[in-house]
Amino acid sequence: MDKFMQAAIEEAQKGLAEGGVPIGSVLVHNGKIIGRGHNRRVQSGSPILHGEMDAFADAGRQPASVYKECVIYTTLSPCCMCSGAIELYGIPHVIVGENQTFMGAEERLRMAGVKVDVLQDPTCIELMTTFIAEKPELWFEDIGE
Amino acid sequence: MDKFMQAAIEEAQKGLAEGGVPIGSVLVHNGKIIGRGHNRRVQSGSPILHGEMDAFADAGRQPASVYKECVIYTTLSPCCMCSGAIELYGIPHVIVGENQTFMGAEERLRMAGVKVDVLQDPTCIELMTTFIAEKPELWFEDIGE
Repeated sequence: MDKFMQAAIEEAQKGLAEGGVPIGSVLVHNGKIIGRGHNRRVQSGSPILHGEMDAFADAGRQPASVYKECVIYTTLSPCCMCSGAIELYGIPHVIVGENQTFMGAEERLRMAGVKVDVLQDPTCIELMTTFIAEKPELWFEDIGE
Repeated sequence: MDKFMQAAIEEAQKGLAEGGVPIGSVLVHNGKIIGRGHNRRVQSGSPILHGEMDAFADAGRQPASVYKECVIYTTLSPCCMCSGAIELYGIPHVIVGENQTFMGAEERLRMAGVKVDVLQDPTCIELMTTFIAEKPELWFEDIGE
């Protein structure tokens, strides 16, 4: 297991333990994690704190020159909000844990020139499958449905 | 002047007075402001707190049934991150102060079925024109350039 995807999964598990949506993300620059986060809809009462957004917020203000050398890892396919943030800041590479339980805006990212790799990682799939079965209302709220 | 765009402008002016990027937004449901905010990149050190995102955060967790009856007002054309949030939550109508100083992802929103009206409001244009001339580096950072 890639150590960065492992770190993203640990973020997702932290979110789950807090009673939240189990999606985690890390922003990596030149082999170093500069931002990490997990979905905090429940914990913060915020609809904008998806895992990827929380990782961007944790990294703080970064120059474009840094973003352009980053890879973002996320346990779940990024929705259109998170994909929009990835596109805004010109992150060139996204590594996705899985897109079987939810397909985000991957095609849009690819059309914008972003490299998107999908691992279909069993741990990521299990986290979301269990969560969606247990808390469907929270999940649908999180994706605006 | 529409009272809701006026409220968004007041948010932008508040941001300017705080030394921040002068972009404001309000989220309106059935004629009532349920969330208001302004860009807080400088104030919070956060790259995800564009004006529209701050208004979504201020409104807190809302059911899809509420979002689908909302109008979002923003003093500046929404970037791909903010447009992604608008699309995620199914906001059907966006009223934009101006798109002369920055053209966001309006076409993408329209393709997703969102109604986008642009006012080309002189106060909104003046706020951004002056800001970009005075703090170009901050502005380019805010749009990932």
